[in-house]
Amino acid sequence: MTRSGHPRLVSELRIIPLTVRDEIRRGQSITATILSALRRQNLSLVPGDILVVKHKIISKAEGCTVALTSVRPSAATRAWARRHGLDARVTELARQQSKRIVRRKNRVLITETRHGFVCANSGVDVSNVDGGRHAVLLPDDPDRSAARLHRDIRKHLRLSVPVIISDSFGRPWREGLTEVAIGVAGMKPLHDYRGRRDPHGYPLHSSIEAVADELACAAGLVCGKLAGVPACVIRGFAYHSGRGNAKQLIRPAKNDLFR
Amino acid sequence: MTRSGHPRLVSELRIIPLTVRDEIRRGQSITATILSALRRQNLSLVPGDILVVKHKIISKAEGCTVALTSVRPSAATRAWARRHGLDARVTELARQQSKRIVRRKNRVLITETRHGFVCANSGVDVSNVDGGRHAVLLPDDPDRSAARLHRDIRKHLRLSVPVIISDSFGRPWREGLTEVAIGVAGMKPLHDYRGRRDPHGYPLHSSIEAVADELACAAGLVCGKLAGVPACVIRGFAYHSGRGNAKQLIRPAKNDLFR
Repeated sequence: MTRSGHPRLVSELRIIPLTVRDEIRRGQSITATILSALRRQNLSLVPGDILVVKHKIISKAEGCTVALTSVRPSAATRAWARRHGLDARVTELARQQSKRIVRRKNRVLITETRHGFVCANSGVDVSNVDGGRHAVLLPDDPDRSAARLHRDIRKHLRLSVPVIISDSFGRPWREGLTEVAIGVAGMKPLHDYRGRRDPHGYPLHSSIEAVADELACAAGLVCGKLAGVPACVIRGFAYHSGRGNAKQLIRPAKNDLFR
Repeated sequence: MTRSGHPRLVSELRIIPLTVRDEIRRGQSITATILSALRRQNLSLVPGDILVVKHKIISKAEGCTVALTSVRPSAATRAWARRHGLDARVTELARQQSKRIVRRKNRVLITETRHGFVCANSGVDVSNVDGGRHAVLLPDDPDRSAARLHRDIRKHLRLSVPVIISDSFGRPWREGLTEVAIGVAGMKPLHDYRGRRDPHGYPLHSSIEAVADELACAAGLVCGKLAGVPACVIRGFAYHSGRGNAKQLIRPAKNDLFR
């Protein structure tokens, strides 16, 4: 159900949660985890389905976790963390995972990660791991993780299912976190309407829609922070198939007014 | 189905498009438009449903449109628009609708609107209106518009249905537009998990989720730019009922690192 270049069909969209109760261990196959959740829920994937997976289970399976006792914060990091009541080890990890500090003020540290994402604490997170002993990092290469899951599912089910790996990011000017796509495979993350005309014949100028981020947000509504639902299936969205990755969602520095 | 304070039920989410083919005219009742779309589609609202409406039909119904021939751009605006190949009248309107210019570079004008939203061109838009003769502004008070629609639907259906009014905004660091809530009524726009503990007993620190924006994004997946679907029903999300508005989604300037 890939309709590259065609207007979207307007059909109902369904967002179906996948429940995974067991803790994900290093080396575990996320493909097997997803396939077994589908079987348990008696759910068959169909053409057009999109799979959205929270990054944390990917990071855990890939071993992208760090024992906090192994982290040695610098003196400067210790001083800053002490002043703001933060865990210096987490701050140190965030610094190590960044390629650049974008802003640092009060308790907030905004960095550009090695991947190019701009977010708080380089995405380093201690919640939903093991009660504060380990921190979870972002996957090394979330696009590669998405591509692997996409390929493995195609191999098992003989079906091309786009995969989005998501994380919760904050943003300037608005309160609260929303989900964003940090890994994408099997679909285009942006829908470009430029050059198309509206029903009045007026050409659409600045109409590039970040559909992968909107799909991540939609998934965020069922993949709760507390719920044991690390993935979901989105059914009924007319995505554009083809090569795509989450790097296409990162605005190049030269076009960015807020670096 | 309001479950204030309880963890979310994890059920399937449905996003049901509402089709409105007719052009919206000034003075038209959006409540009547929505109710008639529901009837035509044989769709009954049920407890727990949320209504998301694209702002453009609200603005048109409220007469928040301006004939471009009536706009007299200043000399400075004319010069800037000429330099970048823009319509000086649209830029002039964007300036008039702003309370502050946040950034202006090349073709991009980021403003803070009278409402406090930070977005491109103060939300002034010429697409999907009448082929370039009129521009659509943001509603005067989108929270009030949402509250009115919420109240009128309750009066007609004896059912409290939260209402979100949405627009597409760009954002720093990431390409593409995503939907955001610019008006909210009948639900809390933010879900606050702080103080709650994850399944490992670890307290969640920075876990405020902008669910109204995620709902707007989910709606954006069916409310297309070209499709005649200016609204949709989201069914199955365990929102937190109560007083809420879109102003709560605007980060106060003193906490914002990117003003």
